[in-house]
Amino acid sequence: MHYSGERFTATYRLTGDADSARAKAQDICLEQTVELPDELVTDETIRGNVFGRIESFTPLDGIAFEARISFSVEIVGNELSQLVNVLFGNISLKPGIRLERVELSPALLENFRGPRFGRAGLRDFLKVPERPLLCTALKPMGMSAAQLADLAYQLALGGIDMIKDDHGLADQSFAPYEERVAQCAAAVARANAETHGHSVYAPNVTAPAPRVHERALFAKQNGAGALLICPGITGLDAMRALADDERLALPILSHPAMQGSLVANATTGISHFCLFGQLNRLAGADAAIFPNAGGRFFFTRDDCLALSAGCAAPMGDIKPIFPTPAGGMSLERVPEMRALYGRDVMFLIGGGLRSHSPDLVANCRYFQELAEEI
Amino acid sequence: MHYSGERFTATYRLTGDADSARAKAQDICLEQTVELPDELVTDETIRGNVFGRIESFTPLDGIAFEARISFSVEIVGNELSQLVNVLFGNISLKPGIRLERVELSPALLENFRGPRFGRAGLRDFLKVPERPLLCTALKPMGMSAAQLADLAYQLALGGIDMIKDDHGLADQSFAPYEERVAQCAAAVARANAETHGHSVYAPNVTAPAPRVHERALFAKQNGAGALLICPGITGLDAMRALADDERLALPILSHPAMQGSLVANATTGISHFCLFGQLNRLAGADAAIFPNAGGRFFFTRDDCLALSAGCAAPMGDIKPIFPTPAGGMSLERVPEMRALYGRDVMFLIGGGLRSHSPDLVANCRYFQELAEEI
Repeated sequence: MHYSGERFTATYRLTGDADSARAKAQDICLEQTVELPDELVTDETIRGNVFGRIESFTPLDGIAFEARISFSVEIVGNELSQLVNVLFGNISLKPGIRLERVELSPALLENFRGPRFGRAGLRDFLKVPERPLLCTALKPMGMSAAQLADLAYQLALGGIDMIKDDHGLADQSFAPYEERVAQCAAAVARANAETHGHSVYAPNVTAPAPRVHERALFAKQNGAGALLICPGITGLDAMRALADDERLALPILSHPAMQGSLVANATTGISHFCLFGQLNRLAGADAAIFPNAGGRFFFTRDDCLALSAGCAAPMGDIKPIFPTPAGGMSLERVPEMRALYGRDVMFLIGGGLRSHSPDLVANCRYFQELAEEI
Repeated sequence: MHYSGERFTATYRLTGDADSARAKAQDICLEQTVELPDELVTDETIRGNVFGRIESFTPLDGIAFEARISFSVEIVGNELSQLVNVLFGNISLKPGIRLERVELSPALLENFRGPRFGRAGLRDFLKVPERPLLCTALKPMGMSAAQLADLAYQLALGGIDMIKDDHGLADQSFAPYEERVAQCAAAVARANAETHGHSVYAPNVTAPAPRVHERALFAKQNGAGALLICPGITGLDAMRALADDERLALPILSHPAMQGSLVANATTGISHFCLFGQLNRLAGADAAIFPNAGGRFFFTRDDCLALSAGCAAPMGDIKPIFPTPAGGMSLERVPEMRALYGRDVMFLIGGGLRSHSPDLVANCRYFQELAEEI
């Protein structure tokens, strides 16, 4: 077995005093690789190449340390599933360890194309060169496919760039997937023909494992212009497989359902920067939906800024993507979000777009005006 | 749209005083269904059928309440992915909400066969009518397929029932999947022929989404006798799809990698009972591997007992499964685990089986003796 010597690194925040934090770092080197006590691994090639290695260990504050740990690229192979496992699989079950960020090496990055569109590509695709992108959701569940399509038609008339399914729309009898997708895509196309607009419809393809790809192909064949998926439910690699499929070639919105527990606690889990930024990009998302601070969820302003930074931090040829603040946002908050995130952002406003005034089309146009203001 | 009136329930632990906990319960009824404020949903059919409903609300202790919330079966359809989303998708992103347990209704349960084998079926399959089952792992990563196969041979000679890949063995160049699976399965078969034993080899099929099923089929065709998968990486439904496939018809071991953050905090996430017991069973696991108390991980004795209870709690026709304590266990701890979990348990001992004495086959036989003692 030949090892290239090429290594990638993961940086962990380790809670505890210097001794216990260092013990955690040493443990990660074994737990994420050989899963055996040091003394039971006698093969020198394995010890020298498979063990993780502490590259740096620095105090963060009185109660935590940061350890940068490197791993051989060979222990991942070329699979996202195993990369995720090496980064945080077993140690998700240990206390006081948080994955902060990853620095992948060239040979490892070559395995991942990342977002097919990214920021520039999605702007081209939607014909929106400058301003923040506009997104909203079809809801509530319980509406029929025809009702949802009518809603999609009005939202497209109003000029919303990205009209996505609510992530709770799956394949329920009130609006079966194929019926819903065909009708909503047709409704958006009809509105575009009237306005000469470029709105797209993004159906939810979060589904049983054998159905995800099948639904995405149906969406493409029936005129959908993007896809929505919850990688916390399907696994990150199901999203990656959609992004990589040339037959689809559609922008992908990543929804954070079920991922909350990974970021619920500052001493465990994965950082917002890494999970919603770096890992989403590696897995092919073009936009990372997240619950903005001051909405219905627990993310703080700092969490959101870190997440946004992860959407654009340098990562080889992996493109930057759109942070997509959501979760109880209102039109009134657009100027503040514009100031916080800059112009490379997608605003996702659901209920707030309905409640602003009874005229939904007018509300959409007002949304666009707000987004265009500098 | 016709609603049957049949509902299933989820019970949540809500942190806070009575007012804030009740507000959380009311919020769950909307957040997990319509995702709109109450006043924006005017359709009476949707209000009456799609909204979640608080069935009971009771104090737990000074700082938490328990709310039992019911949902129409129609909002799930027949898909595990959407069931998981309704149970905990968006509210994973809200503080102070923990999913404790689910009670599924007959029409919903009909969609899920659950474990193909379960306790009785796995005992039949492995020809072990009475005693606890024995499991160990092939490791460390970095060994060649031939070396792993030699190890598997010795473990099978020693009479280990279930010889699984370490969950970090994927498709790396040091032991490529197909080569490893073919050689390890053949090695176990050779040992069985010598001992007239019934050991099985369980390769790890945690893989990129489009490869999981392909690898499982390869395993079946090449003599593997069970499958190992990490649903925290692949998504629960990928495991369900393996369990449901008649072409495979192999027992499934569920590994907890990446699921730690869901159970890391008593005020958020999902209970051990529900995640590792109820949801694992619904998703087809025959055995739930977990880090036992007093090993290398953070589970307490109470966590483990709750998990074990979830492996057997009544759930319609969904079979009970084997709790599989692991994570740094030693032979010395077998009697204590036997006392704690009873006989319907699978003991998973990895490194501890190697370090007991230099004679691995003898160690395995001693493991079996310990497990047989009452």
